[in-house]
Amino acid sequence: MQLVTIPEIEAAAQRVAGTAVRTPLLRQSWVSGELWVKPESLQPVGAFKIRGAHNAIAALDEAERRRGVVAYSSGNHAQAVACSAQSFGIPAVIVVPDVTPRIKVEATLGWGAEVVEVPIAERESAAHAIAEARGLTLIPPFDHRDVIAGQGTIGLEIAADLPEVDTVLVPVSGGGLAAGVGTAIKARCPGARVYGVEPELAADSAESLRAGHRVDWPMSRRARTIADGLRAQPSELTFAHLKAVLDGIVTVSEDEIRDTVRELARRARLVAEPSGATAVAAFLHRSGELPGGRTVAVLSGGNIDPALLAELLA
Amino acid sequence: MQLVTIPEIEAAAQRVAGTAVRTPLLRQSWVSGELWVKPESLQPVGAFKIRGAHNAIAALDEAERRRGVVAYSSGNHAQAVACSAQSFGIPAVIVVPDVTPRIKVEATLGWGAEVVEVPIAERESAAHAIAEARGLTLIPPFDHRDVIAGQGTIGLEIAADLPEVDTVLVPVSGGGLAAGVGTAIKARCPGARVYGVEPELAADSAESLRAGHRVDWPMSRRARTIADGLRAQPSELTFAHLKAVLDGIVTVSEDEIRDTVRELARRARLVAEPSGATAVAAFLHRSGELPGGRTVAVLSGGNIDPALLAELLA
Repeated sequence: MQLVTIPEIEAAAQRVAGTAVRTPLLRQSWVSGELWVKPESLQPVGAFKIRGAHNAIAALDEAERRRGVVAYSSGNHAQAVACSAQSFGIPAVIVVPDVTPRIKVEATLGWGAEVVEVPIAERESAAHAIAEARGLTLIPPFDHRDVIAGQGTIGLEIAADLPEVDTVLVPVSGGGLAAGVGTAIKARCPGARVYGVEPELAADSAESLRAGHRVDWPMSRRARTIADGLRAQPSELTFAHLKAVLDGIVTVSEDEIRDTVRELARRARLVAEPSGATAVAAFLHRSGELPGGRTVAVLSGGNIDPALLAELLA
Repeated sequence: MQLVTIPEIEAAAQRVAGTAVRTPLLRQSWVSGELWVKPESLQPVGAFKIRGAHNAIAALDEAERRRGVVAYSSGNHAQAVACSAQSFGIPAVIVVPDVTPRIKVEATLGWGAEVVEVPIAERESAAHAIAEARGLTLIPPFDHRDVIAGQGTIGLEIAADLPEVDTVLVPVSGGGLAAGVGTAIKARCPGARVYGVEPELAADSAESLRAGHRVDWPMSRRARTIADGLRAQPSELTFAHLKAVLDGIVTVSEDEIRDTVRELARRARLVAEPSGATAVAAFLHRSGELPGGRTVAVLSGGNIDPALLAELLA
């Protein structure tokens, strides 16, 4: 399998410039050790997903793009596709489960997308059917070279801003983010280690990497974690990248995730969603399992229910 | 009176690079109109104050700097002076009122500073006495050319990132931030308007600008606002700048400030302190009093009591 290459990530960086924010590295003085946070929570749509979605849409040929795009997701990827489509002035259809909270549907509508609600089991087939019927291009959340390359632009920025980085920590779910970031870091900073981070309750990739092949955890098992953005599993394509670029995966507990959301708000003045806080949680709570040194943690998103944030802060 | 010049602000930009974060402009899609937020809450110490304090300390001659610095403040300026002094490896003494909350004292100690607690009325005289006795240099919070020039680096960054900006909104307290930002914007973007923002309950500068001279509001009156970072009044030096560079001052209510702290956390994923939220509050609630167009609001700081943030989010 041909892995995503640095030229593909460099091309993505050109395409996402002006749409994705060039996020700074924020040195954290309140921790022991040397930690910089990469706050992807500050992206439009509040998560790194805009990079991959926008790169994939920008890479379409003009005629294809003009017909529009479709995605199935109730989370940050949906909003990223809708946001990018709006910036191109093209139609976007987002297929969501009919149990999606109203607030997420409203957010997607806010980016000008058409939202189609279907029973959860029909999500993927409905999206394919709509793509077929209307001539739209399906933009997958992670199983796509251009999406991986887009997420990889985070790694290029880390390497540019802190070329002497020793360790990069990145959440793992479907694996697009870790694949892209790991590829960029290994190319630009060959001495750096790249670690994935998963919730203990959705540690399918940790088990898969140990086994050397993908191990399936049923959704009922993965759904237990509060980190609702980390319940996907790698595809064949992203898993091949994880095997190639990750030095390891560490897992964090639910309490460690909650504690980190609180500390990020209090000490770093950053609103993180539970999934987004996991890499920082690994730094704070699992330092014994990490190489240490100059460490960058990717804070992947900030779309937390305000009531949950209030509960954690109170 | 000679006002701070662009070359002084450019020199400050050289000095603060590497210590202050080059904060991005964050476009906000959830508002009507075109708003970018400049998140100074992401600075080390959580506020823009690091720019002015670090510039003033970096501008000292080597021998003077090595003897150390002193400041009187219980807020963000104290931590900024302590943080900058630590980065230079020089002594810092921070004089605080003996009623200062323990958490603020701890934060200042955390930057390696010596904290001297005195009765509130003796704060300024105690700082001068310590400076004299120990040969330290007093770093004032705003009434100093190098401090104003340091805060002005925010204006240079805005002009570089959004040269076609129409309106810049900046909180006003002692006036150092508004003076510096206004000076930079008027020089680099001569067509842009610069508006100060004050809480209605501490609107001494708005009244002063209308009167054409400084009008004193007693501290008991200014202390009513929740925006505890906006209770100072301009000095002769900063007021001369405000007269020269501000197109006006708008005021915001306490409810508007609270609402904006909540919305910034929910929609922009940014933790703002009440003082820091005022410029965005003006955009959201006082647009009728502003010229509009492409607007940048300076989010000046993020050091909010977590319990207050929880209360506003719940």
